[in-house]
Amino acid sequence: MFYFERESKSPLYQQLYEQLRQQITEGLFPKGSKLPPTRELAAEYHLSRNTVIQAYQQLEIEGYIRGTVGSGYYVEDLSLFPCSYCRTQPKEPLFPKAEKGEMLYDFYYGNLDYNCYQSKAWRRCLLDACDWMAAQKTVAYSEPEGLPALRHELAGYLHVSRGVRCLADQIILTGGHQHSLSVLARLFSGENWKFAMEEPGYNGTRIVMQQYGFSPVSVPLEQDGISVAKAERLSHALLYITPSHQFPMGSVLPIAKRLELLQWAAKSDSYILEDDYDSELRYHSLPIPSLQSIDGNERTIYMGTFSKSLSPDLRIAYLILPRPLLGIYHTIFSHANCSVPSLLQYALAQFFHSGEYQKHINAMRTHYQKKHDYILNYFKENLWDRAILSGADAGLHFIMTLQNGFGNAALTEEFEKNKLRIYSLSPFWNHQSSCPVNQFLLGYGSIPLVELPLAVSAVRAAIEQLDRNDAPLR
Amino acid sequence: MFYFERESKSPLYQQLYEQLRQQITEGLFPKGSKLPPTRELAAEYHLSRNTVIQAYQQLEIEGYIRGTVGSGYYVEDLSLFPCSYCRTQPKEPLFPKAEKGEMLYDFYYGNLDYNCYQSKAWRRCLLDACDWMAAQKTVAYSEPEGLPALRHELAGYLHVSRGVRCLADQIILTGGHQHSLSVLARLFSGENWKFAMEEPGYNGTRIVMQQYGFSPVSVPLEQDGISVAKAERLSHALLYITPSHQFPMGSVLPIAKRLELLQWAAKSDSYILEDDYDSELRYHSLPIPSLQSIDGNERTIYMGTFSKSLSPDLRIAYLILPRPLLGIYHTIFSHANCSVPSLLQYALAQFFHSGEYQKHINAMRTHYQKKHDYILNYFKENLWDRAILSGADAGLHFIMTLQNGFGNAALTEEFEKNKLRIYSLSPFWNHQSSCPVNQFLLGYGSIPLVELPLAVSAVRAAIEQLDRNDAPLR
Repeated sequence: MFYFERESKSPLYQQLYEQLRQQITEGLFPKGSKLPPTRELAAEYHLSRNTVIQAYQQLEIEGYIRGTVGSGYYVEDLSLFPCSYCRTQPKEPLFPKAEKGEMLYDFYYGNLDYNCYQSKAWRRCLLDACDWMAAQKTVAYSEPEGLPALRHELAGYLHVSRGVRCLADQIILTGGHQHSLSVLARLFSGENWKFAMEEPGYNGTRIVMQQYGFSPVSVPLEQDGISVAKAERLSHALLYITPSHQFPMGSVLPIAKRLELLQWAAKSDSYILEDDYDSELRYHSLPIPSLQSIDGNERTIYMGTFSKSLSPDLRIAYLILPRPLLGIYHTIFSHANCSVPSLLQYALAQFFHSGEYQKHINAMRTHYQKKHDYILNYFKENLWDRAILSGADAGLHFIMTLQNGFGNAALTEEFEKNKLRIYSLSPFWNHQSSCPVNQFLLGYGSIPLVELPLAVSAVRAAIEQLDRNDAPLR
Repeated sequence: MFYFERESKSPLYQQLYEQLRQQITEGLFPKGSKLPPTRELAAEYHLSRNTVIQAYQQLEIEGYIRGTVGSGYYVEDLSLFPCSYCRTQPKEPLFPKAEKGEMLYDFYYGNLDYNCYQSKAWRRCLLDACDWMAAQKTVAYSEPEGLPALRHELAGYLHVSRGVRCLADQIILTGGHQHSLSVLARLFSGENWKFAMEEPGYNGTRIVMQQYGFSPVSVPLEQDGISVAKAERLSHALLYITPSHQFPMGSVLPIAKRLELLQWAAKSDSYILEDDYDSELRYHSLPIPSLQSIDGNERTIYMGTFSKSLSPDLRIAYLILPRPLLGIYHTIFSHANCSVPSLLQYALAQFFHSGEYQKHINAMRTHYQKKHDYILNYFKENLWDRAILSGADAGLHFIMTLQNGFGNAALTEEFEKNKLRIYSLSPFWNHQSSCPVNQFLLGYGSIPLVELPLAVSAVRAAIEQLDRNDAPLR
């Protein structure tokens, strides 16, 4: 028995096909049973015979029935059909988003209020890229390392802005810092290479490298950056550092230490992974030249990202490999595709080429310097006796150290009460017990300039409240 | 001795800083030597004293010199400086792009002449997304599995178009098929799980899984798709198949075999990786419902991509995980970022929501059906006695089988002569020796419709030329 909606959008043959398929899956036609001859079925329901044949053919393509010349269509053995399931569609979400308490001010690190989308030029470059793609005869998979045009622009820019000395060929575009690490994890296996990083250091890097089978060694920081003496004990190692602006503490690695590290790397068959994540955001002094720029032995792997300079949403980062590593890279990744959409690569190449990238960086620097200076002055004037900010003059965060020793838990709690969120440094410590309880990360990337006065005075209020509470050190 | 360009764009302090830094790195100031007092230097070169101080301070930040209160600035120990290198900038590219012979017609598989950039609506959606991003208070890193809005749209679309039964929570957006595989490689380790795939099958999958430490087992194809009997010998395995349109041979897996595979998977603690890479492109019959749609035991991992339906340049694919796997996914990837730019995710969500995606697919299907039908008819009329096309009615390629047994090398050569490129099937065979020498892959995705008549008649000419040569089977 079949029903047909002559008005329906779905053609009659499809209506018949769907009803037949359901009846077959529900076992109405046992294995081997014969379907009504097309002519009869057509007559019975006033369908054209072609409609019936079309429905039968679809069922045959999918293997529900088999047609035998001259004798009609027979149902296949479908006894395995899990009928009860066929019409169940799961209803309830398994992971309802956890309700985050509504925060007024979140000093989270990494998000940006001023970003490339504030730039009309970026929008224009996107459109140009879109039109350019449309004009192509075909769109294709791009080479794994990225579009030559973009890598060429980038090489030129980095030479001027960061002293980086490389060929476009040495630049590998990736889908973000974590993707860069995954590329390195495939160039260097965890069995043969030690992986070392600063303590404290960027936890994202530590976690990802652990997942790729490395057991990160912690090298302690000194006042002026990583302890070279400790690092020099390693050999055949990948040493991940943030020399231009140590994350999270904010120090600049002095030139003498840089030279010692480079010498160590060459002697000990090691590589330095220089993460230059926010070098463009330096406010009251010139950008610090990269470590790569003074490496004469091709022992530095330069890691850059556009997450800070354009937007974290774009998922564009890059590696600059020493030339001796290019051969193995091309061997491993010859079948890979570049994970950055060509659309964005063309847009970015155009953004560089037109000089708009530099303009954008300048505007961005001005914007974040205002925030940087405001917070710094506010603390100097109002909290000088209670809190010290360090790691200043660059990037998008401060380290806040409380003088009276009020700890992590206490302050965080007080903040949550006031609908503020600041962040402990403990995630950045491999040995979390060593993390000072009175230090916090104050990220100002995502709090709009206009809201900054309210945000920092709220911080002040929370700290002063604690003093009044005379809360114990936890 | 210093030189200053008063007209230059770079400020005087920077000019002084750069010259001092160079002189220090070149060893003109030995370790511990004292720099001229700021007042003297300022006077000597008619600079303001602040200019000199600013330059000295920059050198101090970078660790070239150390200031001691009251007694001036002293040069640090930089004996390690690799001077000879500091000013060398590599010149020659290491990997000059190999000059591919200029091809007139390339039957390469995977590129698209008709793609999302042909759709004005896609451009509009991109712009909307761009404006939407600009309007946000901040841009942020998105959740690893992708934007809920897009996954919601996708779940709805796949239910209607592919019968897929899933929650938005089960969808994981990735940066392409290879990235999807890398996610799976981290959910299932190569030590504990066997990985099996069709023979012949998609070599991209085989190579990537090998690189992730799996040793792919080959399961032979039969006329109607994978040999279930052979597959059933496996247990605790990941079985990668292309049931709706076997790649490369083009068969449709019959419903009976699908049910047997699903039963096997449930019994043997295995998973079926259903790669539904081009299901939307089926021309003269309805799309084949997905395997996932009849899996009652959550043993199917559905793999989709937008490389065929929108553009390979976009780098957007997705996985649909059975709910029991979501817990482990969230454990492993809690620190990951989604590798698809939010800009594109919003644009795509909008493209779905506005119904434009469906319109685009329809237009695309019409476009490629014209090519499909043209080639098919041309071969029927002109090459019926020499070449057979199989794997028709879907996707973007045919399998061409030569009747007179002319082989791979001979034909490929003849084609190159005529500036045509077709492709052997051998890359898709794990045991390449088993690959029939007279079968070729004819991809028509990237040859413009208007050029198709010329392209196929060129193919005909080459084949006929071979007949005349009466070239032996190689």
